[in-house]
Amino acid sequence: MTSTANKTLDGHKLLVLLGVTGPPKSLLGTVFRLEWIAELKELFPGLEIVTVRDATWNTPSFQKKFPDEEWKDVTILVTGSALPTADIAPKLEYVQLQSAGANHVLDNPLIRETNVALCTASGVHGPQIAEWVVTTFLAFQHQITRYVDIQRQSRWQKLIEPVNDAVQQRVGILGYGAVGRQVARVLKALGMDVYVCTLHPRLSPESRRDETYTPAGLGDPEGVLPSKWFSAGDTEGLHEFLSSGLDLLVITLPLTRNTRGLISRNELALLAKQKTFVSNVGRGEIIKTDDLIDALEDGVIRGAALDVTDPEPLPDGHRLWSTKNLFISPHVSGDSSAYAQRIYEVLKYNLIRLSEGRELTNKVNRNEGY
Amino acid sequence: MTSTANKTLDGHKLLVLLGVTGPPKSLLGTVFRLEWIAELKELFPGLEIVTVRDATWNTPSFQKKFPDEEWKDVTILVTGSALPTADIAPKLEYVQLQSAGANHVLDNPLIRETNVALCTASGVHGPQIAEWVVTTFLAFQHQITRYVDIQRQSRWQKLIEPVNDAVQQRVGILGYGAVGRQVARVLKALGMDVYVCTLHPRLSPESRRDETYTPAGLGDPEGVLPSKWFSAGDTEGLHEFLSSGLDLLVITLPLTRNTRGLISRNELALLAKQKTFVSNVGRGEIIKTDDLIDALEDGVIRGAALDVTDPEPLPDGHRLWSTKNLFISPHVSGDSSAYAQRIYEVLKYNLIRLSEGRELTNKVNRNEGY
Repeated sequence: MTSTANKTLDGHKLLVLLGVTGPPKSLLGTVFRLEWIAELKELFPGLEIVTVRDATWNTPSFQKKFPDEEWKDVTILVTGSALPTADIAPKLEYVQLQSAGANHVLDNPLIRETNVALCTASGVHGPQIAEWVVTTFLAFQHQITRYVDIQRQSRWQKLIEPVNDAVQQRVGILGYGAVGRQVARVLKALGMDVYVCTLHPRLSPESRRDETYTPAGLGDPEGVLPSKWFSAGDTEGLHEFLSSGLDLLVITLPLTRNTRGLISRNELALLAKQKTFVSNVGRGEIIKTDDLIDALEDGVIRGAALDVTDPEPLPDGHRLWSTKNLFISPHVSGDSSAYAQRIYEVLKYNLIRLSEGRELTNKVNRNEGY
Repeated sequence: MTSTANKTLDGHKLLVLLGVTGPPKSLLGTVFRLEWIAELKELFPGLEIVTVRDATWNTPSFQKKFPDEEWKDVTILVTGSALPTADIAPKLEYVQLQSAGANHVLDNPLIRETNVALCTASGVHGPQIAEWVVTTFLAFQHQITRYVDIQRQSRWQKLIEPVNDAVQQRVGILGYGAVGRQVARVLKALGMDVYVCTLHPRLSPESRRDETYTPAGLGDPEGVLPSKWFSAGDTEGLHEFLSSGLDLLVITLPLTRNTRGLISRNELALLAKQKTFVSNVGRGEIIKTDDLIDALEDGVIRGAALDVTDPEPLPDGHRLWSTKNLFISPHVSGDSSAYAQRIYEVLKYNLIRLSEGRELTNKVNRNEGY
């Protein structure tokens, strides 16, 4: 990676693969608007931009649209999973993936054998997932579904139970990446106290920062919103966090061997005092489904919202569907009509950094795999 | 009103009337927790505090609980609507009402004929109403009710329509008091651009401030969150605001002769381009009901949420109940289990100001009547 400034990106060639399908995995059919190309050309007069659309990778038809010799000057590639060899694209410096994860390309020789910067689209889900978390929690607190049912009966009827608003309530956020940080921003604006729990301890201000792409003004890149930090590196730390008086627990962790089954009967029991509302937008397998059902049916916790389940897809008729005080949506919280726009924002953000000779954001650490 | 500091409130006597009923209007049966009295005693060692509970105003039983001669040293009174005469309570300086409005006591001789500071509980509704606005809007955007229906069928089914998240969308807030300012804070945290429209023009920074009580850290007391200010003093100003590309319109105005019927067919037509979502937490009569029904049924606007209706209560079976893309709740958005707590916070806030010789907050301007 260059560390000298090149304001116009002179000599750089950007290839955008759109709707290009093929092994090992289909690529996102992401749109790339003409106005974005125009904006990039204005920002970087020296940058050559080529797009290839609707072709099948590694076929004569693809090579017809983009002959092998065209690759030799490509320095920047926007792709879903298709990657050239190092031989054919010797100048490639920066690969921008269109997905939040990178595990589907980590075994590709280009990634294994070269130092090409591999950047994910991590962060593009933050706002919409945070909205889902806030909405489903507040809708439960304000009994919105019950009022929908009353409205359907065309009746004016106030419910007796008082609403507990969010002011001075406490949220515990388990995992503090792009999603967790935007959840923190919104809940803080609602007046909530924010506790967070990360797998590794974050003792210094530097360790609390996060360089992941965030739409301007959102999230918590500096890590200043939480009033208390916990570490779930061991069971004791996790249990201390879960016992800290949480009104709402938001799980934003990825699924790893450390997080599978992390929340089971013992952990849910720690939430009994506040009857903590549990929101899971990480992965279904982080919570043991049978234990969650028991906790809800027994009133150990007051309610839950799941955008992810175990098993997933949740089979028709599974008893989780009808568990009381539970809202389930079918893994949709990350969907947004702004998805393509936001991938473009990551690309633009990184091109600006590249042009200024600065480190790229969202770079995959090949050892950690994310 | 004293303008000299009296840190301990030496010589002051606070009377709190709780569950005291009688003409002209029932009082709120607000609780006043023992821990609050203890906190006030600690804050102000010189303050004498007396509470009178569960009595009927102007009856021998009340006088038995609180003889007339006890009034002579009362300087501060917490009440719903009962007020003594100036003769009986000559030292009374500050009356704290338990309601957001004051019109029910403006004709009382004590208020008409003396300069006693009359303070409302305005601001105590801000957080919970803002939550209602944010929740009902986002629940519509994220199609939460449709997912509830799918869940009730025990099915895993994703809806095809993409979710438009709030980032870079624009809200227009009509009326910018305690509720509007907290709505602005939360929507700004979600990434929205905030426009506001007030009845009087707010051209200077001073005019954009609001001294109404707000829970610490919430709202927008300085008036710095909006990127653009409009004035609805005339139809032209209102129409300019409504034509400014709003994705969401939030109405937080009180009902006055200027606001009755303010939003009718012509105004709704200006929202057609963005198919603005309309949220009303002001008063039902501000929007013409028949015009709103037409706008929703014809798809002029994409949806609406009403916590207030015209007529109100909305009669069983009224056609507004079944208007499409509409959510109605029965005037409950201001209810909160924190209501009594927050009235106490207003009182405490004002006692601190009184002890520092500063102006009280939430003071009623007798000419304007609020």
